[in-house]
Amino acid sequence: MGPSRSSGFALETRPAEYRHWRFGIEPPLATLTLTVAEESPVVPGYKLKLNSYDLGVDIELADAVTRLRFEHPEVRAIIITGGLDRVFCAGANIHMLATSTHGFKVNFCKYTNETRLAIEDACAHSGQHYIAACNGTTAGGGYELALACEEIYLVDDGNSAVSLPEVPLLGVLPGTGGLTRVVEKRKVRRDLADVFATLAEGIKGKRAVEWRLVDGVFPRSRFQEAVRERALALAAEERRPQGPGIVLDALSPEVTADTVRYRHVDLKLNHEDRTAELTLRAGADYAPLRAFRELDDALLRLRFHYDETGLILLKTRGDLNAVRQADAELYHDREDWLANEILLLMARTLRRLDLTARSLFAVVDEGSCFAGSLLEIALAADRIYMLRDSAGAVRLASSPLNGGLLPMTHGPSRLQVRFLADPARADKILGESEPLDTDAAEQAGLVTAAVDEIDWEDELRVAIEERVSLSPDALTGMEANLRFAGAENSDSKVFGRLSAWQNWIFSRPNATGDRGALTLYGKPERPQFKWRRT
Amino acid sequence: MGPSRSSGFALETRPAEYRHWRFGIEPPLATLTLTVAEESPVVPGYKLKLNSYDLGVDIELADAVTRLRFEHPEVRAIIITGGLDRVFCAGANIHMLATSTHGFKVNFCKYTNETRLAIEDACAHSGQHYIAACNGTTAGGGYELALACEEIYLVDDGNSAVSLPEVPLLGVLPGTGGLTRVVEKRKVRRDLADVFATLAEGIKGKRAVEWRLVDGVFPRSRFQEAVRERALALAAEERRPQGPGIVLDALSPEVTADTVRYRHVDLKLNHEDRTAELTLRAGADYAPLRAFRELDDALLRLRFHYDETGLILLKTRGDLNAVRQADAELYHDREDWLANEILLLMARTLRRLDLTARSLFAVVDEGSCFAGSLLEIALAADRIYMLRDSAGAVRLASSPLNGGLLPMTHGPSRLQVRFLADPARADKILGESEPLDTDAAEQAGLVTAAVDEIDWEDELRVAIEERVSLSPDALTGMEANLRFAGAENSDSKVFGRLSAWQNWIFSRPNATGDRGALTLYGKPERPQFKWRRT
Repeated sequence: MGPSRSSGFALETRPAEYRHWRFGIEPPLATLTLTVAEESPVVPGYKLKLNSYDLGVDIELADAVTRLRFEHPEVRAIIITGGLDRVFCAGANIHMLATSTHGFKVNFCKYTNETRLAIEDACAHSGQHYIAACNGTTAGGGYELALACEEIYLVDDGNSAVSLPEVPLLGVLPGTGGLTRVVEKRKVRRDLADVFATLAEGIKGKRAVEWRLVDGVFPRSRFQEAVRERALALAAEERRPQGPGIVLDALSPEVTADTVRYRHVDLKLNHEDRTAELTLRAGADYAPLRAFRELDDALLRLRFHYDETGLILLKTRGDLNAVRQADAELYHDREDWLANEILLLMARTLRRLDLTARSLFAVVDEGSCFAGSLLEIALAADRIYMLRDSAGAVRLASSPLNGGLLPMTHGPSRLQVRFLADPARADKILGESEPLDTDAAEQAGLVTAAVDEIDWEDELRVAIEERVSLSPDALTGMEANLRFAGAENSDSKVFGRLSAWQNWIFSRPNATGDRGALTLYGKPERPQFKWRRT
Repeated sequence: MGPSRSSGFALETRPAEYRHWRFGIEPPLATLTLTVAEESPVVPGYKLKLNSYDLGVDIELADAVTRLRFEHPEVRAIIITGGLDRVFCAGANIHMLATSTHGFKVNFCKYTNETRLAIEDACAHSGQHYIAACNGTTAGGGYELALACEEIYLVDDGNSAVSLPEVPLLGVLPGTGGLTRVVEKRKVRRDLADVFATLAEGIKGKRAVEWRLVDGVFPRSRFQEAVRERALALAAEERRPQGPGIVLDALSPEVTADTVRYRHVDLKLNHEDRTAELTLRAGADYAPLRAFRELDDALLRLRFHYDETGLILLKTRGDLNAVRQADAELYHDREDWLANEILLLMARTLRRLDLTARSLFAVVDEGSCFAGSLLEIALAADRIYMLRDSAGAVRLASSPLNGGLLPMTHGPSRLQVRFLADPARADKILGESEPLDTDAAEQAGLVTAAVDEIDWEDELRVAIEERVSLSPDALTGMEANLRFAGAENSDSKVFGRLSAWQNWIFSRPNATGDRGALTLYGKPERPQFKWRRT
């Protein structure tokens, strides 16, 4: 195993600080041009040649996708292209992968998957359409990025190809959605997908179109113009009024050795116990957009900077009614472009929470305000502990936002997934106009354990101690299997099926051992495989 | 890693040879009583204490489930119970798991999953209803076996519990469907499932009913009688005429170092090249039931006895029209109990093929007869190579059985999955009354590569050489992700999500390293975990 990447690199950025992407706005179009700065990896140790990417490159892309929605709503179509001659993107940097810890690799892939999903979310729900303009080599993660776009165009120069060379060259999978999106989203015939994913050189020209791998090919001489025409046509179909944009201000939390403090969110780390408290405060100044952006940043810090934290205690502080009021306003304005964007961002953040491979316990105690959108945080938890106080002041509440506007990755709401056995319970909770005290919440099926005051501290302490004593790998697998009941879709197959297989393959000697294909990539030695099939 | 289990043990059995199950027939009921013979493991090296099971125990169970359908169709309800005092079943034997190779563990879990699915298939489609009578300790794989039954009853003696102790005791998952069936089939609330799956001692009595983990509890004094009453009630609901049964004769293939010869199936192993040829012959004596039973046995031999074989070449020999005729008869009689059972067995065998973690190339050449049910074998393959002969004698054909009677694990037919992008193509192929020659088959989208006679040998040789040179782990992951396009269901989640996570966890030091929980189970030392979450 190489060095851990938990080196405190920044997860927040803004266009003025981008090192890898050029951000060109020309409404109704925008262009995101990838020209990776070779000498600027997110942590030292490798060069980002041939427009290969690492986490730093994807952090900028994720930022650009979010800012386009909020800051440039007048943009209706975005062209993603490569700024190097005859190179679109060569995918994830192999030397970065080969020197990363197992956990970093897995979390890097998860994050890039989430960025791809954010692009698809913008196409589907924000009226911002992404087109991949593959101006040259489009390999591995580069093609996976293209797959996240609504349409893919490839230059037809007799040389440029799209490819997924992970299996033949690296002994791992195109795990950032590649295999899933090829057969599920683009509906490439499975036997052609099999040929494609084992062919290091990829597929080019008309055959790429016939196999459905790209939507069209154009000669180099008119490539830019043809893609631009297509982008303008897509943009012209979007007629919803949008804008003017708002600026997303910097989060800039105060960070100490064991705290990260934002305006609405506090993250407190108990390194010794391997637990963290993540508290969202909804006071008089409560602003959902800012609060969920902070929550998102805090989750990413937990994933990348605090990888030994096994259990996150999810807490809230504030006024139930303030949260319900904010939710009611968003619900009322949900057809408005900005309210829509805020709701979509809240939904993406909650999905990031669902997909965070740490145990999650929601703690509903005095002063908490788990209402509506914040109730979703509790519903995302593996367990909900609720104090049964003598005053009956501890309460939970639903809001119209629990009715499906904040869906899970596989589509249904968290209430629907919770009450698969009895869907009427979800409707009943949605219909409650008043907050529920602990007894009522328990009766409604919202609480894992309702605990009297006298037992509260001990019961919580024991539950926490037990949880953090268990195998972190077994917990990751268990939670991934219990959180997502109900039918899978393409998105959740990426995380559930494809990522799980990739996790396994990343840990196998045939990939990451001394003689494994990933380890030896670019070196003169050939990998040596153990041939047993599993 | 311990010894490989590829020791040539028998995969075929019959009731007279059972060592672990008692098979009691009392129409309309049957009782399968598990009394594991401690001293009869499938390979030497461990004792099967407390009704814990190994592959040998599950081979007998799978045989019993199949024979009940064919040989005892008058049976309408089957009670599975434990023959030891206060023990139903303690799950998979830990010492067996701890000393098995990674590949054996994974294939053992896959096989037991398939047996569970066969039980569910009998409940859903054969009018044979399974009830778990949990007369005592029901732990781990024991509870997973109960979960496969339609109803679960637990003795209420203040002590007997159902449990999934894998996560807290072993650092692995209840991977034989346990986690999936708890939240998807029994629809246990996810937070309660979380508590249950981390609680080594499990849940007993009324709470087990309230949490939906069992369907009822009865005191020991009237346990047997209460379960029997429930079984009779279920049996009374089944009124379809069935029987008389037929006897499933022994397969008894001739086995040499590199061949396994059955009546209709030949398996030829090229150990040096790590390939196998699996040929199904449909001659004048063609009998689909026998042929598919042989195919099933051959697939299991490949999985368990020949784990270095990376690529299976699927071939057929015989008369297209004989196969179409046999298919037409089965289709015509599909409401008849025996034709229904034959179709269900063919479907299960084809699903076993889909789920076999080896590369599959179908070879359609002179003398082949890939029609209808045998066309499904080709459609299950990762690629289909078809000879373009000058005479136009090489042909493929559909039959009504391609229209959904032989579904994949996740529900759709193989034609539907193949043509997700253009469902009309599947209908067109179903509507073809005549066989298709190579050009027509290619046009129809059935062929990966149509190859002229002059190139045939070379092209096939190169494709085979390339395939067997790739990382076997990457191929396993790739194939698992490309074969099952379309919406997942509970069954396919077991294989796709749960099994993939279990594969990963089995390969992690926290489970199987020197200080891992699985390795140290039953020893005085405590496991030592690396705490990084992934």
